Amino acid sequence: MTSTHVLSLEQAYQLALRALRSNGFNQAHAEAVAQNVTQGERDGCASHGLYRLLGCVRSLQAGKVSADAIPRLFDQAPAILRADAGGAFSLLAYRTALPAFIDKVRTNGIAALAINRCVHFSALWADIEPLTEQGLVALACTPSHAWVTPAGGSRPLFGTNPIAFGWPRPNRPPFLFDMATSATARGEIELHRRTGTPLPEGWGIDKAGNPSTDAASVLEGAMLTFGGHKGSALAAMVELLAGPLIGDMTSKESLAYDDGTGSSPYGGELIIALDPERFLGADRAKYFASAEAMFADMQAQGARIPGERRYRQRRQSERDGVEIPRTLYDEIVALCD
Amino acid sequence: MTSTHVLSLEQAYQLALRALRSNGFNQAHAEAVAQNVTQGERDGCASHGLYRLLGCVRSLQAGKVSADAIPRLFDQAPAILRADAGGAFSLLAYRTALPAFIDKVRTNGIAALAINRCVHFSALWADIEPLTEQGLVALACTPSHAWVTPAGGSRPLFGTNPIAFGWPRPNRPPFLFDMATSATARGEIELHRRTGTPLPEGWGIDKAGNPSTDAASVLEGAMLTFGGHKGSALAAMVELLAGPLIGDMTSKESLAYDDGTGSSPYGGELIIALDPERFLGADRAKYFASAEAMFADMQAQGARIPGERRYRQRRQSERDGVEIPRTLYDEIVALCD
Repeated sequence: MTSTHVLSLEQAYQLALRALRSNGFNQAHAEAVAQNVTQGERDGCASHGLYRLLGCVRSLQAGKVSADAIPRLFDQAPAILRADAGGAFSLLAYRTALPAFIDKVRTNGIAALAINRCVHFSALWADIEPLTEQGLVALACTPSHAWVTPAGGSRPLFGTNPIAFGWPRPNRPPFLFDMATSATARGEIELHRRTGTPLPEGWGIDKAGNPSTDAASVLEGAMLTFGGHKGSALAAMVELLAGPLIGDMTSKESLAYDDGTGSSPYGGELIIALDPERFLGADRAKYFASAEAMFADMQAQGARIPGERRYRQRRQSERDGVEIPRTLYDEIVALCD
Repeated sequence: MTSTHVLSLEQAYQLALRALRSNGFNQAHAEAVAQNVTQGERDGCASHGLYRLLGCVRSLQAGKVSADAIPRLFDQAPAILRADAGGAFSLLAYRTALPAFIDKVRTNGIAALAINRCVHFSALWADIEPLTEQGLVALACTPSHAWVTPAGGSRPLFGTNPIAFGWPRPNRPPFLFDMATSATARGEIELHRRTGTPLPEGWGIDKAGNPSTDAASVLEGAMLTFGGHKGSALAAMVELLAGPLIGDMTSKESLAYDDGTGSSPYGGELIIALDPERFLGADRAKYFASAEAMFADMQAQGARIPGERRYRQRRQSERDGVEIPRTLYDEIVALCD
């Protein structure tokens, strides 16, 4: 049995903040990152939880992330806002851009936010929620590091390239999905390597381009996208939208920039938000009821509403706090002054 | 051997135009539809080619499509244009809205076009190309009829819900994909039923909700999405974006409206376009070169660029014309006065 440690959400946040401040992140960046990893832990996404603090500090020590860059906003076009993260994590840039971005969405009906030159480790759902909370519909995507081969290919080219989408629901958590376009997360494959268990078919290929269920071979070879050539097309779309379109790196360029340090991907994120109020006006309630009827139909036949497991976990964590492995807790405490 | 008939593209267009005019479509609608089905045939998409004329006429005879509605445009918000098709096919509404939509995209950097109250039978790639030809990046989606079950479900709820995306390439056809979020097209399943061949696993379930490879059982049961719960999440997103968000029907509502006539889906289509010029300014050429490097990398390892097969077929059709089954040709001729 693994020994664990329980923290209230406030304790988890304060611990994260201290670990980040102790290692040189300024207060604004430390707050944005601490909030994000606490949210991940709270929602039962351990892979985007407190564990990420170790990687944040490692990226800083490797010189791959800025501890204090001040985000700069550019009013790029009436419906485009650009936030230059200046080589820091994406989170403070996003937080800084949010009010002006929401203004643009409400004014124009649809708008895009391009975050540039950001180091990206965080889950996209956390960037969607502040928008659905405002009653907006939102989409986000970001490339990562080149680990995934295109359908029919034999070498890594795309990142795990997540796409997230959120739809606000009256008096409920949003309909919100956040999915990698790879067949699985890279962390899953690393887990199989550590435990020595074979991978399911369809997760990856070896260096020679042949299908493989050996985790070590796939980590040296390439991961596959989900859903064959369709998933591959979507992965390419993410590269284009959140790379070249917004003047930022592809996953291949990001991995080259990383130069073997094992840091988080560096590049851009694109967020598109739409205001139902501007599309629907007085008919909003009527059409939102039609969306609710669809969700009810899904649930009546046993299909899951994306995000609902996370929201259930959130309610539990708010009540009981979060439980993390003792070893992880000790490692984080060791990061603190 | 099937007997065939060869038509030049101009002959195919004129034949289509005559068949539509003979059955009561006005000149503007007939031109828009004739152009679209000729393009489908030209690009080797027989399922969106001249064969569709039969369904267009059938929908008209069933009273499920308007032959002469004049599309109305609404300047919904600075970055939203709405086109009310008035119960006619989507194509004339799109054609009518295009200039004002492109203006909105260029002015704002990103804009959305909602086509409402349209009967939809056409492939989305044909709506993306006029935008990539203008140097814009574009996304489109539309619900259809409720034939597809959500992941974990047992009954039809979603449509085949295609998503199309295009990226303009300098001096080349665009990178352009147009994919159903269902595991396959409904027409494919019908084809298996006619030939009595079993379906591949993963295409559908029977009425009781169990996996089935029997085409007839799946047509009575439900189709599956591609890529498991991820494809299902995307199918739901299409319902929301091109249904309730734009004040139009879900696939389930569309099928109820159809009332057993077997007509094309009725509802909305959402198109989002982004102007790289506004995102990138003077850096456009540099970042488009980085996208080209990614495409070259795909091709070097044997991966296909989405759309390239269609563009190859197009060049051939422009040279040699299109070859359709003699029986289809005779059926279309029989539609003409």
